[in-house]
Amino acid sequence: MITSAANQKVKQVILWQTKARERRRDRVFLAEGFKMYEEAPAEWILQVYLSQSAEQKLRSGEAESPLCRKLAESGYEVAADEVFAKMSDTQTPQGILTVLRQPEHTLEEMLEDPAPLLVLLEDLQDPGNLGTILRTGEGAGITGVIINEKAVDIFHPKTIRATMGSIYRVPFVCVEDLPGTMDQLHRRGIRTYAAHLRGEKSYDAFSFRGGTAFLIGNEGNGLTEATAGRAENYLRIPMEGQVESLNAAMAAGILMYEAYRQRRRADERL
Amino acid sequence: MITSAANQKVKQVILWQTKARERRRDRVFLAEGFKMYEEAPAEWILQVYLSQSAEQKLRSGEAESPLCRKLAESGYEVAADEVFAKMSDTQTPQGILTVLRQPEHTLEEMLEDPAPLLVLLEDLQDPGNLGTILRTGEGAGITGVIINEKAVDIFHPKTIRATMGSIYRVPFVCVEDLPGTMDQLHRRGIRTYAAHLRGEKSYDAFSFRGGTAFLIGNEGNGLTEATAGRAENYLRIPMEGQVESLNAAMAAGILMYEAYRQRRRADERL
Repeated sequence: MITSAANQKVKQVILWQTKARERRRDRVFLAEGFKMYEEAPAEWILQVYLSQSAEQKLRSGEAESPLCRKLAESGYEVAADEVFAKMSDTQTPQGILTVLRQPEHTLEEMLEDPAPLLVLLEDLQDPGNLGTILRTGEGAGITGVIINEKAVDIFHPKTIRATMGSIYRVPFVCVEDLPGTMDQLHRRGIRTYAAHLRGEKSYDAFSFRGGTAFLIGNEGNGLTEATAGRAENYLRIPMEGQVESLNAAMAAGILMYEAYRQRRRADERL
Repeated sequence: MITSAANQKVKQVILWQTKARERRRDRVFLAEGFKMYEEAPAEWILQVYLSQSAEQKLRSGEAESPLCRKLAESGYEVAADEVFAKMSDTQTPQGILTVLRQPEHTLEEMLEDPAPLLVLLEDLQDPGNLGTILRTGEGAGITGVIINEKAVDIFHPKTIRATMGSIYRVPFVCVEDLPGTMDQLHRRGIRTYAAHLRGEKSYDAFSFRGGTAFLIGNEGNGLTEATAGRAENYLRIPMEGQVESLNAAMAAGILMYEAYRQRRRADERL
């Protein structure tokens, strides 16, 4: 059992929790909690840490549970509760922390779908928003997320937590040049839609049944001119009252669910 | 200028920041930032505090700006920056904090609309979710929010911030007995819809053009049996992949925007 916070592994986990650079260098990310462990693809798991009290609780339970079987396979190390608390990013840790290898999706893979439904995120800063977009996006059946390099790290612990496991299932790529990527999408016949003040038509006046990519910009500043200028279509999410904009994750969610609604209706008609 | 954190007013502001009980007793709430001050109805404003550096910046700017005129009318006190930082709930305060009286809306007022669009929130715990629901709800044109007493305080500083000013414009009431309130709504012909596992029909298969009330439950546990059991209709938000539920604010947003979409379409047909 690890009993000292000076332990080299503990120090490394803390660096991975706090520094995107460290995660990038080692191509890993962390996920906390039982749900995140249970849903993790076995081949992504590199290390598992349990707090002493979580391990004791597991030992007193059923040894033949799927969770215990998975733990026996992946192996784990136990850390004293006070050491585990230092490794954890949460205030009330569940007592399980998984170190995973970063998946490597490609844009080409994402575009294999005959009618992709993509979300392009530019300079998004809030890790909770990013995670919520992945979670909601999985629900709406999106085929991928494309995010630019200036945005928050997709492997930020708060993003991972907010995905509620969708990080394992929604393909995503990080690109340097978002307008260049948009050109690639256009060449493949995928239509790009920017939620923008220039938008005159309401979002629900478009058909999203074909290949679709929604552009969502930074929380405070929206899309850059370079990116908005490259979009094929401008749409507006109508707003009553004095509301100037919606939260970025909310705007993305409303657009993705409208696309999903149209696509489900089209399926029903077949 | 207030130079000591031991000042009685400073201590009181800190209590209002941190304790729902104190806010309730004095029937006040706090709002931080310039946008929140500028949008505040003048008759709600009780006190205004500026940090010394925010005041200096204002003095060097245009005296005839609407902001300066509003400040001249409402009056304000200046606090040294380090004292202001203690009064503030944010990490990088903008330097303006407004003390406001709590509005008193009534259910009767809310029901005057011929086809109300209401959101009923049970045991909601996350202040950010609550604020986002008010903000998105104003955008979707809802006529009110009804929240039960066990939920997070609607005047929580994080809620106020997340509303982005919608707290001034969306009517809300806090009720002790949510199922009893639902009976009242039913008697007025308002239909209640619970997002629930019992729901077989997708949310977009209903018409929300008449009086509509959406029920949203606690983030972890959903609706209680007592409340879900009283609902007239159960609906389902379809979800692909392995998603078990959406974030509570996201679910509310998708429902409210679907109702708004239907209502706008109905208007266009007239």
